[in-house]
Amino acid sequence: MESGRVEAKMEKKESGGVSHLALDIGGSLIKMVYFPSNSSRSIDDQVNGSSKDGLAASSDDHHYSLLNGRLHFFKFETSKVDDCIDFISSELLQHRGARDNEASISGKNIIKATGGGAFKFADLFKERLGITLDKVDEMDCLVRGANFLLKTVHHEAFTYMNGEKEYAQIDHKDLYPYLLVNIGSGVSMIKVESDSKFERVSGTSVGGGTFWGLGKLLTKCKSFDELLELSHRGNNRVIDMLVGDIFGGLDYSKIGLTSTAIASSFGKPISENKELEDYRAEDIARSLLRMISNNIGQIAYLNALRFGLKRIFFGGFFIRGHSYTMDTISVAVNFWSKGDAKAMFLRHEGFLGALGAFLSYEEHDLADMAHHMLQEFPQSSYST
Amino acid sequence: MESGRVEAKMEKKESGGVSHLALDIGGSLIKMVYFPSNSSRSIDDQVNGSSKDGLAASSDDHHYSLLNGRLHFFKFETSKVDDCIDFISSELLQHRGARDNEASISGKNIIKATGGGAFKFADLFKERLGITLDKVDEMDCLVRGANFLLKTVHHEAFTYMNGEKEYAQIDHKDLYPYLLVNIGSGVSMIKVESDSKFERVSGTSVGGGTFWGLGKLLTKCKSFDELLELSHRGNNRVIDMLVGDIFGGLDYSKIGLTSTAIASSFGKPISENKELEDYRAEDIARSLLRMISNNIGQIAYLNALRFGLKRIFFGGFFIRGHSYTMDTISVAVNFWSKGDAKAMFLRHEGFLGALGAFLSYEEHDLADMAHHMLQEFPQSSYST
Repeated sequence: MESGRVEAKMEKKESGGVSHLALDIGGSLIKMVYFPSNSSRSIDDQVNGSSKDGLAASSDDHHYSLLNGRLHFFKFETSKVDDCIDFISSELLQHRGARDNEASISGKNIIKATGGGAFKFADLFKERLGITLDKVDEMDCLVRGANFLLKTVHHEAFTYMNGEKEYAQIDHKDLYPYLLVNIGSGVSMIKVESDSKFERVSGTSVGGGTFWGLGKLLTKCKSFDELLELSHRGNNRVIDMLVGDIFGGLDYSKIGLTSTAIASSFGKPISENKELEDYRAEDIARSLLRMISNNIGQIAYLNALRFGLKRIFFGGFFIRGHSYTMDTISVAVNFWSKGDAKAMFLRHEGFLGALGAFLSYEEHDLADMAHHMLQEFPQSSYST
Repeated sequence: MESGRVEAKMEKKESGGVSHLALDIGGSLIKMVYFPSNSSRSIDDQVNGSSKDGLAASSDDHHYSLLNGRLHFFKFETSKVDDCIDFISSELLQHRGARDNEASISGKNIIKATGGGAFKFADLFKERLGITLDKVDEMDCLVRGANFLLKTVHHEAFTYMNGEKEYAQIDHKDLYPYLLVNIGSGVSMIKVESDSKFERVSGTSVGGGTFWGLGKLLTKCKSFDELLELSHRGNNRVIDMLVGDIFGGLDYSKIGLTSTAIASSFGKPISENKELEDYRAEDIARSLLRMISNNIGQIAYLNALRFGLKRIFFGGFFIRGHSYTMDTISVAVNFWSKGDAKAMFLRHEGFLGALGAFLSYEEHDLADMAHHMLQEFPQSSYST
């Protein structure tokens, strides 16, 4: 199990069960969002961020005031779904029955879940935990999660270009329409027009799963993060065929391509008498990351253009706050739009779906929980 | 050296030099178009196709009547540029001087050439052959070549879907506007509005070079064609993460994805404890071909949509008349356009640029040559 951005180093003795929890079970990762019901103050201190990060409580919306408590985020590999089940078993269920208030929610033995795995693993959860996964549509959840974060969390969105991160102040009244690009194993692109109106308009199968799947085959990396780390030290020019390689070092300026632009991703091995082992894993990782990030940026831009959407928000666990990934996506959007469109990123990028599933609980359940939360942590804030 | 579709098995003793020649020197391949000035009848017979394929002679256009002779097409690997130079040296230059009429054209020691290699190898051609490469812009050439073929060659364009090839009758007056997608090492997408008005509106670095470069690294294939051949026997479901893999065998019908749709290209190795060697080269080749063809089809469609272009013509040497490649591109265009747009292919797909360069010779030169051609082969037709 790996924790998300909220580094809640929960210790058994301090944890007191989970009052509410939702899952997003994707092709590669299971994302979990939950409220711990009685984390001690000391844990809160450990994870406490700047007060700027706090969720604004809005009296006219249960969903918002709800989150005056602390949200915790975790992820597991989907192939290790048993770890997730064990975690839920020990953290959530061991306290059930001892706490009647919680039983009103978790006692229903229902967990909101989205992603394809909510279907695939339904029987397993039922069998192992006696829990029914209440399936919530993935696109609904992604949009709900993104809207919530963009409206509620200060400095949730930012741009990233040439190594500079700049937080964007989104006017809540001017949020829509936008394009949401969720980069998981595959990529979904959703035109979001209002809280309730949205449509998956496009997508691509060339996503995070492609990066990690191809990367695993091409290098000896043992994890996605190791591959990302490698890419940081690589040089894609060793693998990619550049415009300059074709033009003898010159630009193709008439159509706006500099000599260092990539003419053909992975094109260099064509004319070299080398085998896979002769190339450095770092360089391969870099080319791969650049190919995929650039491709997603381009397809996203073309879809934004199609619907006249100026803002594109990129989420999903592919990005992981990785500077080079964001930079490449930003450059792609900037290049193809000739500066017209901007790529924006989300601090809670990987948890849109899980958060959306979480927010899909019935309002009275959320209100119940909010009530408990507010009693327990009246001044606590959302932390990252 | 490999011949193109015109299988002109030219033998030294029968060839009589080359009266006119143009080159398109790309990142992977050198494409050559030329008129042999005195091929014997027996060679013509070998390559003669149906009379339906003949180029219509048009009295008001030198370019058209010109091609009453036979055009020959050849390709070489760019990394073996010396082979190309040797060929030109033996076929073209050995006869110079002995034939005064030809000297008026080739005697200028100038060859029209396009593609980045026209810059890169300019010095080499000068040094080895005393020939100056007269550089012609690549986009100009692609468009000129495509327009020429579409207007002049009967049954040049066709659709390909579910294994069925259907020739399209293009009304010359209704040809424009269209999107030309040239898939070489990289991909160029050009909006063509008239004979002279066009613009490169997009492109992608994920092209033929990516297929062959990644394929070379992932398999032990020795050639592009071998990799293509392998892909024919492969099963991409072994490598790609399908919607059904995520959803436990179910469709994600709400957003129109069947269980067999690819959710994540190359996503399966993520959750499998296997190494590259444990996968069959056939399956890898198939996934790769599908990923790249599908991606190009999608980006092409998005660009066609952007400019309201109903017709998309795909050219470039990536396709090579390969049924699965065309089928995937067609399916992608059909899927993303919901049946609105159609992918069309060109029989002389790989030679658009070279043909365009060829057609860029000064008209009086072409007229001279046409004159010789018509005298030599008054009834000959263009053959494929």
